[in-house]
Amino acid sequence: MTAFSKDDAVHMARALRLASNGKYSARPNPMVGCVLVRGGEVIGEGWHAKAGEPHAEINALAAAGDARGATAYITLEPCVHQGRTPPCTDALLAAGVAELVVAAEDPYSSVNGKGIARLRAAGMPVRVGLMDKAAKELNRGFFRRVQTSKPFVRTKVATSIDGAVAMRSGESQWITGVPARVDVQRLRAASGAILTGIGTVLADDPSLTVRDKSIRAHSEQPLRAIVDSKLRMPHAANMLCLPGQTVIYCVDDTHREALQMKGAEIVRTAAEDELVSLAEVLTDLARRGINDLLVEAGPALLGSFVAADLVDELVIYQAPHIMGSETVAMLQTPAWTRLSDRRQLEISDVRRLGADTRITARFVRAC
Amino acid sequence: MTAFSKDDAVHMARALRLASNGKYSARPNPMVGCVLVRGGEVIGEGWHAKAGEPHAEINALAAAGDARGATAYITLEPCVHQGRTPPCTDALLAAGVAELVVAAEDPYSSVNGKGIARLRAAGMPVRVGLMDKAAKELNRGFFRRVQTSKPFVRTKVATSIDGAVAMRSGESQWITGVPARVDVQRLRAASGAILTGIGTVLADDPSLTVRDKSIRAHSEQPLRAIVDSKLRMPHAANMLCLPGQTVIYCVDDTHREALQMKGAEIVRTAAEDELVSLAEVLTDLARRGINDLLVEAGPALLGSFVAADLVDELVIYQAPHIMGSETVAMLQTPAWTRLSDRRQLEISDVRRLGADTRITARFVRAC
Repeated sequence: MTAFSKDDAVHMARALRLASNGKYSARPNPMVGCVLVRGGEVIGEGWHAKAGEPHAEINALAAAGDARGATAYITLEPCVHQGRTPPCTDALLAAGVAELVVAAEDPYSSVNGKGIARLRAAGMPVRVGLMDKAAKELNRGFFRRVQTSKPFVRTKVATSIDGAVAMRSGESQWITGVPARVDVQRLRAASGAILTGIGTVLADDPSLTVRDKSIRAHSEQPLRAIVDSKLRMPHAANMLCLPGQTVIYCVDDTHREALQMKGAEIVRTAAEDELVSLAEVLTDLARRGINDLLVEAGPALLGSFVAADLVDELVIYQAPHIMGSETVAMLQTPAWTRLSDRRQLEISDVRRLGADTRITARFVRAC
Repeated sequence: MTAFSKDDAVHMARALRLASNGKYSARPNPMVGCVLVRGGEVIGEGWHAKAGEPHAEINALAAAGDARGATAYITLEPCVHQGRTPPCTDALLAAGVAELVVAAEDPYSSVNGKGIARLRAAGMPVRVGLMDKAAKELNRGFFRRVQTSKPFVRTKVATSIDGAVAMRSGESQWITGVPARVDVQRLRAASGAILTGIGTVLADDPSLTVRDKSIRAHSEQPLRAIVDSKLRMPHAANMLCLPGQTVIYCVDDTHREALQMKGAEIVRTAAEDELVSLAEVLTDLARRGINDLLVEAGPALLGSFVAADLVDELVIYQAPHIMGSETVAMLQTPAWTRLSDRRQLEISDVRRLGADTRITARFVRAC
């Protein structure tokens, strides 16, 4: 068991906080924070803002100027490979850093323990594992993608307090208030891609963009992923005229050319009951560097995702209405006829947003 | 505007807290608390524990022994009439109390301002209105009954996170955990009556009693009210053998005698589409001194209550499950086909109970 002091915890907590500054911009890279401490005093701080730009360690070293003899607290193992920037291990050694405290090992195969091994081989003491759970949770999407070749899948849905999203007549409207909608903008901005189905596109012609200007300044528009088995996407769809990239997943790509002319990318997947293979969509998105996917879909597609056990987290915005029994449930699951078909969740957060309630829950997987 | 000091607020807050000691036992009387203060020091405290026993003021005076020159903080206007106990106004004057601070006037017609008037006529200064909102909220059932001849109606329902109570196949089971079930015991104990429908009786044969021993010590069993239009109540029903009283509301009382033999009381109401008039049930319960009614009903009866706008508060215990679309909604409202039929609520409390979430919400009435 590696020993960590209370001061170690204070500095690592600060490093984690710094890391989260990259929430809307670091992707596809992980968020990383670094704090340099000498004689009990913080002499430099840094975080990774954007892929291609300096890593957290480099920023912290630059802020410190002279970091000789310092202890470096880093939320993720320093890289040892030449990527778009030179290896951080070399920079830490060159700067004369005396000791390293690392929260979690980098799961990325080019690093994955090699950074720590390299530093130890060069004689630098490295302690690993302080707040590793928080560090992995912060980068859950990155860890998920690197370890499983799938993104972390979060779904978002707005319902009445009795779980309805529309009347059976089809009648529906925005039912949640402004704070909930602002919150959705944050979820979008923190996601590498936003996925929806062609049904929602045809019904609502959504933009799927981050419109909140205070957020938009820090990130590029998330990729838009559309599940559209028969490629019914209208050529005049709103999203095709907006900044950002649109990828359309289909099984029948007969009409692909006109959409490609509009700038959309068309990807054909294997067919499952004539529908797009959702598992294949996830693999393709991971290949594109998507760590975190936000699914904003109607009941049919949402039901397919949940029934296939492809969802990790559910965020429900519950408006304080009772809509009754002549309604459309938040997800369609026609094959679930027994109580044992239901899915178990674990609530991770419940809070009020204006008049609404936001419930965040993780799906509990049989291990 | 009457002036109150910070000390006044401290003592009244204490009196409100004392009042709530009568939560499970004061009914049909209101909960009342009293604090006697002299020279900045609390010299006596009391609350009303049980109908027929001394009122809060009398208990506080007894605790003080000598209360001459004291200021009395009382959460509800002192009674001026001879009820089961002598008037408190006289006791306060006889004890030489110098001043009175009252949270709310008693809505009960025999008091309703007369207590305050009597004390002022006798030369005692009385300040009224400190924390009146909290005082009325504490006794919302009592105020409701006295002012409208109906009880405060609270409904309780346990659902999945997507609003379902059972599979369409009828399959259902306890879905919430122990902390939620213990909480329901508290709701029951704080209610003068618990109401359910014959459907629930036939399906589950419930006892509708307070079984938690720590609570039971303080209160009598709530009245059991059963909505049973055609009087189908089984003579062997569990609840007919348990302590406490059962009242069955019907429109067809042909088979009343056998049930009366079993100790049940049968009440015939006007028929509304051949069903029991729920408004009449509420009036009858108020006449019986029920301040707070807890409705624990299945989707059909719950839907009727909500659609008739007879419910004040909804308590939802949400289990962290997704049950899907082939389910029974928490309330049946076949006549609600438009979005405008939905009912608006205002969330008053959201908290986690073990793995579950409890949402408490008030129905917002068009004024």
